[in-house]
Amino acid sequence: MKPEEDAFGQGLWAHHNGKESLEIVERDDGYIDAMNPTIYFSEHKDWPPSVQKAMEFVKGRVLDVGCGAGRHSLYLQKKGLDVLGIDISPLAIKICKLRGLRKAEVMSIDEVDFKPNSFDTIIMMGNNFGLFQSFKRARELLKRFHKMTSPNALIIAETRDPYTTDNPAHLEYHRSNRKRGRMGGQVRIRVRFKKYATKWFDYLMVSKEEMREILRGTGWKVERFIDSEDSSYIATISKETPDE
Amino acid sequence: MKPEEDAFGQGLWAHHNGKESLEIVERDDGYIDAMNPTIYFSEHKDWPPSVQKAMEFVKGRVLDVGCGAGRHSLYLQKKGLDVLGIDISPLAIKICKLRGLRKAEVMSIDEVDFKPNSFDTIIMMGNNFGLFQSFKRARELLKRFHKMTSPNALIIAETRDPYTTDNPAHLEYHRSNRKRGRMGGQVRIRVRFKKYATKWFDYLMVSKEEMREILRGTGWKVERFIDSEDSSYIATISKETPDE
Repeated sequence: MKPEEDAFGQGLWAHHNGKESLEIVERDDGYIDAMNPTIYFSEHKDWPPSVQKAMEFVKGRVLDVGCGAGRHSLYLQKKGLDVLGIDISPLAIKICKLRGLRKAEVMSIDEVDFKPNSFDTIIMMGNNFGLFQSFKRARELLKRFHKMTSPNALIIAETRDPYTTDNPAHLEYHRSNRKRGRMGGQVRIRVRFKKYATKWFDYLMVSKEEMREILRGTGWKVERFIDSEDSSYIATISKETPDE
Repeated sequence: MKPEEDAFGQGLWAHHNGKESLEIVERDDGYIDAMNPTIYFSEHKDWPPSVQKAMEFVKGRVLDVGCGAGRHSLYLQKKGLDVLGIDISPLAIKICKLRGLRKAEVMSIDEVDFKPNSFDTIIMMGNNFGLFQSFKRARELLKRFHKMTSPNALIIAETRDPYTTDNPAHLEYHRSNRKRGRMGGQVRIRVRFKKYATKWFDYLMVSKEEMREILRGTGWKVERFIDSEDSSYIATISKETPDE
């Protein structure tokens, strides 16, 4: 990632340094929105009950994919777990280290490749199931994650059911996606902050049915869904036993 | 203005209806920022001292150019002045009317053309000196404003000295502007909100020296500057007497 592409990290960095900052997310149909990076620095007590509950299932050696400013990693590290946080954003990882995360590396999900039995839990919080990008890429990465993890490993991943909206712009976007052979909730977006802009990337939001369909044949299955008050939900995903 | 272009009004409308809303301003060099429309609904007690002071000079029949959600117009109307608010945004004008502004019309600054002696004060608050667009357009509009107003009329206009920044992106933008024969602080921007986007338009920010230069020969002169705590300032601009 070139320095001028680290829009996400620059937004976090501004916030980390006490400056007002709003990160902008632009979708390829022109839909645009801004968000306050405060959420990336929130603490356990501030999290929705669904996220607090999900954290109870984390165990052993943890890989935090898309760790941002490290809110989940730092919580788990403090609980005594062995956590590696990775993020594609160099500034995000710098912030994680400054905040005390001992193991933090600049790494995109596409670069993730560890030896067999390296992790017991992979977490993808804050809608980071989206980092799977597409139906096809999700299945490839899930198979890779299968090899990297212990027999009783869990993936704990958060997403948002994109189809619960009644926003006409979103509904039209789902239709347009399907026409192009993409999943309805496969949004193509980029993050912008001042003059910084990430490249355009796919971020995948799925219904529960779609998630089950993605997992089929990858060696993973949904163990439980943890619902929230809105359309976000978290899945704990475990390995299928050989006869499943 | 087509409905899909009223990004500014849509942002105000969302806020007026109690929804969280952030309006995005994009500059033609890719610089982007978001702002909370709350300021457009602020009340006299919340305004900076410079703005409160400027309001003391408003008199008689008032034209509020770019009135937004009507914060200044409503204050002046309540004080008993005869105020017409105009804005290019149909939704902004709808909101002004809903908030009780009796005279409010959809009109861009380019369409402003009233009979001689129609107004005693023209206000252009909230950096709305910027609506003059460029050196040349400012002078044309100032001459038109001269004809429309009474002999002792005032223009009360707010802007921001663009050259006080040390932000490298802004400094580079000033340089690039000058190369293209534009004023340094002549920003080309558009407002975006969800899928709504205005057309690109010029918005002019000037130093005090530049403002004096623009006024020269238009029949107007700076009467006083009212400074603020930051780079914003307000000018009260009066008519030159014939021998000036």
